[in-house]
Amino acid sequence: MSLVVVGSMAFDAIETPFGKSDKIIGGAATYIAYSASNFTKPIKQISVVGGDFPQAELDALASRGVQLEGVQIKKDEKSFFWSGRYHMDMNTRDTLETQLNVLENFTPVVPESYQDCEFLMLGNLVPAVQRSVIQQMKKRPKLVVMDTMNFWMEIALDDLKDVLTMVDVLMVNDSEARELSHEYSLVKAANKILTMGPKYLIIKKGEHGALLFHENHVFFAPALPLEDVFDPTGAGDTFAGGFIGHLAKTKDISFDNMKTAIIMGSAMASFCVEKFGTQRLTEITKREIDERLEEFVELVNFDIDLV
Amino acid sequence: MSLVVVGSMAFDAIETPFGKSDKIIGGAATYIAYSASNFTKPIKQISVVGGDFPQAELDALASRGVQLEGVQIKKDEKSFFWSGRYHMDMNTRDTLETQLNVLENFTPVVPESYQDCEFLMLGNLVPAVQRSVIQQMKKRPKLVVMDTMNFWMEIALDDLKDVLTMVDVLMVNDSEARELSHEYSLVKAANKILTMGPKYLIIKKGEHGALLFHENHVFFAPALPLEDVFDPTGAGDTFAGGFIGHLAKTKDISFDNMKTAIIMGSAMASFCVEKFGTQRLTEITKREIDERLEEFVELVNFDIDLV
Repeated sequence: MSLVVVGSMAFDAIETPFGKSDKIIGGAATYIAYSASNFTKPIKQISVVGGDFPQAELDALASRGVQLEGVQIKKDEKSFFWSGRYHMDMNTRDTLETQLNVLENFTPVVPESYQDCEFLMLGNLVPAVQRSVIQQMKKRPKLVVMDTMNFWMEIALDDLKDVLTMVDVLMVNDSEARELSHEYSLVKAANKILTMGPKYLIIKKGEHGALLFHENHVFFAPALPLEDVFDPTGAGDTFAGGFIGHLAKTKDISFDNMKTAIIMGSAMASFCVEKFGTQRLTEITKREIDERLEEFVELVNFDIDLV
Repeated sequence: MSLVVVGSMAFDAIETPFGKSDKIIGGAATYIAYSASNFTKPIKQISVVGGDFPQAELDALASRGVQLEGVQIKKDEKSFFWSGRYHMDMNTRDTLETQLNVLENFTPVVPESYQDCEFLMLGNLVPAVQRSVIQQMKKRPKLVVMDTMNFWMEIALDDLKDVLTMVDVLMVNDSEARELSHEYSLVKAANKILTMGPKYLIIKKGEHGALLFHENHVFFAPALPLEDVFDPTGAGDTFAGGFIGHLAKTKDISFDNMKTAIIMGSAMASFCVEKFGTQRLTEITKREIDERLEEFVELVNFDIDLV
């Protein structure tokens, strides 16, 4: 059994009201792998980088159980680069620059050794690339989870809708859920999206937590109230990594276990935002994760006697 | 023992993306009383209305256990009137018109029969009026809860800060907490406000739920995800009514019981927004409240094995 993760591995340059980073390591699949590696091994990565991507970073991932056979290295090209600036509320940001580079003509190839995939995490990427990975799997994975973003709704909606019919769980943020469904109410948006393919829908609301919808059930996980959100970059991917990592570890894809997985994802995301980029994720210990999970239990625990 | 409620009883005219109301019954103390009356009786009301306030409305409140000896009726004057228009997100609104009328020179008088007050709910009102009620109490109530709004921070900040030193629990929304503390982070805002007098702080975030801060503890209650928010007017007051109503009923002012009280408040608020004004609050049954409480338990309940 294994977890396969698809997504970008890239460079970011980030400005927040609290500071400015150099060109640092980023990319959806990088965050997902760092986060998930706290729960399960191996993680079989599918991505593409340029010759400029540091070997030391690949080694660091490998040392955490991330297999890189599916990561193409295009020596003469440059890695994907994104730079952006966050506003004070940290929920909105401006993209300053996007260089697609190696992502422009990315054709993923699923290695034979990845064919035992039980859990497939499709990080945010061109929908056609996500579909290609699903189609290369000889046996359908037990669970396919897909992240995406508004950008693809605007330029590749037909492909995106096609991929939706192939996945079990969709993860989007609140504005993306509204855009995809043309509904303002998140409950109505969820009901509509659940007719488009996925059986489970996670709506991420940043500092306002996350909702999980399935049939007529809904579960809400808060975000941990933090003194400072230093850099929200990658928080959604880190959430995804904790979610799929917990499911892959426990091999239980019930609704109840997905609730727990969402709390795991929320806990991981609460670390991610404490420092620039992936830095905090490279440092956390099992003990710190457990302490944070206890904070989540404290945060929402209440007693009601229904008489 | 008793619960005393101070606040406006008024008329509102409301426009939302879904419709427009006539001039209907509103006012903080009206919503609080309707909501709290589901938990405790009597409720001893302190307010002021004009000769235009319908006797039928006063009778309806009285029939629910709301005592009106402290409600001044100024026959030759008009009741407070507010009209406003909500935007699509229902979290922002424009005030179209405010007529202070009887509120302009309101001097509250606490009747002798209210002196057994154990729970005092200061609905949003001029801070000096809130203070006057506290000062007229011969014996300090067991718990004083205060609601306020940004308007008073702008025109009566010194009075507001003075009242803060006299209360146990402050309720504000997120933007008010930021304005009062000059901190953007709600955790930092809470830490600062808890040095200004109140031992407990509730930050209401509308559809994003509510936070309760006390010393170094924090509790989060979600809002119930709703298909439609028809009219949010009075939701905060209804929340306050459920909160203080539960505390007055149980006479337990521990942090743990305040958590439960916040869930009660959130459940009541989820009814309030389903119809214009107080209408939905006049209809709900004990059974409906219990069903909604079960939905809250479902919504946030999860299992984590910390190993």
